[in-house]
Amino acid sequence: MLKDWNRPEKPEKDEMKARIRAARERLGEQQMLLKERKLPVIVLVEGWGAAGKGSAIGQIIRNIDPRFFKVYTMAAPTEEERRKPFLCRYFEKIPEAGKFTLLDSGWMDEVVRDKLNGQLDEKAYAGRVESIRRFERGLTDNGYLLVKFFFHIGKKEQKQRIESLLASKDTAWRVSDNDVWQNNHYKQCEEAFDQYLDDTNVPSAPWYLIDSENRKFAEMQVLETLATGIDTALKNGSLAVPLLPNNFPLKQMPKLKDVDLSKSISEEEYREELERLQKKLSALHYRLYRKRVPVIIVYEGQDAAGKGGNIKRLTGALDPRGYEVMPIASPEPHEKARHYLWRFWTRLPKTGHITIFDRSWYGRVMVERLEGFCTENEWQRAYYEMNEFEQELHNWGAVIIKFWVQIDKDTQLERFTDRQNTPSKQWKITDEDWRNREKWDQYEVAVDEMLQKTSTTYAPWHILESVDKKYARIKALKIVIDALEKALD
Amino acid sequence: MLKDWNRPEKPEKDEMKARIRAARERLGEQQMLLKERKLPVIVLVEGWGAAGKGSAIGQIIRNIDPRFFKVYTMAAPTEEERRKPFLCRYFEKIPEAGKFTLLDSGWMDEVVRDKLNGQLDEKAYAGRVESIRRFERGLTDNGYLLVKFFFHIGKKEQKQRIESLLASKDTAWRVSDNDVWQNNHYKQCEEAFDQYLDDTNVPSAPWYLIDSENRKFAEMQVLETLATGIDTALKNGSLAVPLLPNNFPLKQMPKLKDVDLSKSISEEEYREELERLQKKLSALHYRLYRKRVPVIIVYEGQDAAGKGGNIKRLTGALDPRGYEVMPIASPEPHEKARHYLWRFWTRLPKTGHITIFDRSWYGRVMVERLEGFCTENEWQRAYYEMNEFEQELHNWGAVIIKFWVQIDKDTQLERFTDRQNTPSKQWKITDEDWRNREKWDQYEVAVDEMLQKTSTTYAPWHILESVDKKYARIKALKIVIDALEKALD
Repeated sequence: MLKDWNRPEKPEKDEMKARIRAARERLGEQQMLLKERKLPVIVLVEGWGAAGKGSAIGQIIRNIDPRFFKVYTMAAPTEEERRKPFLCRYFEKIPEAGKFTLLDSGWMDEVVRDKLNGQLDEKAYAGRVESIRRFERGLTDNGYLLVKFFFHIGKKEQKQRIESLLASKDTAWRVSDNDVWQNNHYKQCEEAFDQYLDDTNVPSAPWYLIDSENRKFAEMQVLETLATGIDTALKNGSLAVPLLPNNFPLKQMPKLKDVDLSKSISEEEYREELERLQKKLSALHYRLYRKRVPVIIVYEGQDAAGKGGNIKRLTGALDPRGYEVMPIASPEPHEKARHYLWRFWTRLPKTGHITIFDRSWYGRVMVERLEGFCTENEWQRAYYEMNEFEQELHNWGAVIIKFWVQIDKDTQLERFTDRQNTPSKQWKITDEDWRNREKWDQYEVAVDEMLQKTSTTYAPWHILESVDKKYARIKALKIVIDALEKALD
Repeated sequence: MLKDWNRPEKPEKDEMKARIRAARERLGEQQMLLKERKLPVIVLVEGWGAAGKGSAIGQIIRNIDPRFFKVYTMAAPTEEERRKPFLCRYFEKIPEAGKFTLLDSGWMDEVVRDKLNGQLDEKAYAGRVESIRRFERGLTDNGYLLVKFFFHIGKKEQKQRIESLLASKDTAWRVSDNDVWQNNHYKQCEEAFDQYLDDTNVPSAPWYLIDSENRKFAEMQVLETLATGIDTALKNGSLAVPLLPNNFPLKQMPKLKDVDLSKSISEEEYREELERLQKKLSALHYRLYRKRVPVIIVYEGQDAAGKGGNIKRLTGALDPRGYEVMPIASPEPHEKARHYLWRFWTRLPKTGHITIFDRSWYGRVMVERLEGFCTENEWQRAYYEMNEFEQELHNWGAVIIKFWVQIDKDTQLERFTDRQNTPSKQWKITDEDWRNREKWDQYEVAVDEMLQKTSTTYAPWHILESVDKKYARIKALKIVIDALEKALD
């Protein structure tokens, strides 16, 4: 992109000034429309060191109310951040509906820098690019406007700016070692930038090259491009997103109605197996901690199927410092205002840790589908998105195990009644549970579809026959142990 | 405490087993009561390395539903955490009402360790202890149950455990350098622990020493103590908290009715001053970034007093990478469920950064007081708590500036009407604004009291006469510049 780029023509000074002011005011007006239409905007400001990224951001936000934006300056990832998937810290910062996030350097800078300093070889770099393409598509498909700027300046201009900053002690600290390195390896950097821009230039999130030789001119380009981008996005808001083919490696799953729920285990065998397996799991837990393998376990199932008790038998074997159970209820307002996977991206384990999700992102294709909390296009798309999400986690190195805990309708009724009649269990049963029960058949259709479409080789579903809860617990322990042993080999 | 401690008598094995089980079940039952009564519980597990803290936590949570607890293992603070007040990362982790937070080592471990390794001299250590006493009192006064355990083992026992862990490669990684250091300097550590325990042993949050020579016995003591503590707290729930004398260094403030709102500035002088002052502030911003001074600016004022425009003139001078405006609206559910200062503790700037709060913790003594969102005891206490909070920030090194932006009732009516009649401003005016306006006089009483009681030498209030908004903006800029210059000298 950089090589065949035609620099835009710079207007006269007065014209620039007028146009900057006009675009800034336009942005100020757009914030209300964004709020009304619940359009979230991410502005990615990338480019050469000392190219004026900071002051351009200053111009963008000048007419925007502080309630509607956040600016993040991304430094090198911390030790803690390095123990999460690399996109985690960016996903964390996406705005609520109707608001702006501005990133002063983002995932481009991180990836290109790691490529240049040899931390990423060709293959790892290609993996990152693929992750980024998916990440960006996931955002734009879910209604985010992503505006990507690259601030371009020549070697000579950059050198001059660096020197003039270094000349005063009040500004010298603003020059980073990386800025100087860039200037000394300008050609090499330019090629890496160019490659990245080509790799990630897609119609739904194109790159805008900003001629930054002149600061005012750069600001004008940024403001006008952003305002135009917002106008377009506001117009296109209601366009449906095409579905992608679900071309992930799927595993065959049985239909729920064919599951043999009569499976059971004797009390004696249960006691013995529980002790044996918990001991084994406990040892494995330490090993995966040492090897820094992250583990994600998902529990879904009918109400009163026995998820809680099943989880408890698993965690009974685990060191509390190395695992976390994430109970997932309906999203809170600040969660609902963001991409539906946000609250899961921000709850991932770090390497060496286990996170158990008691309900999960699969709510999208169950409760959200059936209650109409999302559109058909959205939940249909979610099969793909969730397979992709899990593939991302798998590529990062995570072990992913998904349990569907299954009972029949009569067993549920028994357990509901028992809960209602036992004072210490009453908090576990709500009117909503009874309402959900009425939709048993619809749920079964949705769950069957989910199992068929999201059981992948790298993140398979396992059905736990839980009319005999003890049987289900032992089965879960065995599956987890098996998966961890494979991962540790 | 350690020296004159009478070790409890260890029961027979069978009795211990039965009592552990009984206490665990009691905890399981208590979780429902905690939920109903909205009592939050913090369990601090401190003590010698290899004393069995982890397995005791495992026992505590075994019968508690994962929805109701979180376990945090606290490592040494990260670079990022070091740029916040040291208690920040602990405050961040306090539970919601009705839930548990369990900390595997907390503020005790951090402070004693820093004292032992020479990072804290006597005076700094005393400062930390004082901060901790305030922090703990702030929690218990606001309805948190804080249960503090210290796991005590002898030098020989610790040595044996360390050696047996080191003997196997599967467990060796669990021994930290600090554990070994402790054992080699047992006497010295014991004295430091003892000193800290004495320093922080208060009736509202006493220390419980746990004899940890025997693992099962230690677990029994912990479980029984915790269950008893919860019972007591559930019984004492409705006791009023006594008010503390507001003995902070206060500055005299005028009454609002005596403020001269006729102050104004000419358009020409405004332009000149604005440019001059913004330039000055911009230079100061870089200097405080370099010197790592954190700055906290609070804006409060009547609706339509001109807070937003005033803030904009301040931020117009600032590099967007070094400041953040925090608009404060009514708390979200997860915020309301915690200590009322939680959402401010978690939004503090890091060193070298500026955070501007557009409304703040002072909502407690204004809207929350007037709308009855908190009890009289609570808002009366808040004057003290907020002075203490700000003193904590001041001791950390923060510059704190608080603005009350003042207009008269007629001016507000004019501006409300203008907002209602201007399409681009309509989002700024709500029914609530009109309702608040009806309570103008009550607000005046509350604000006057707030100004009298919370304007301290280290965090003074400044009244901005904002009938002429331009006058108020210039005055704000001058006050900020003045405060920063003093801090940088």
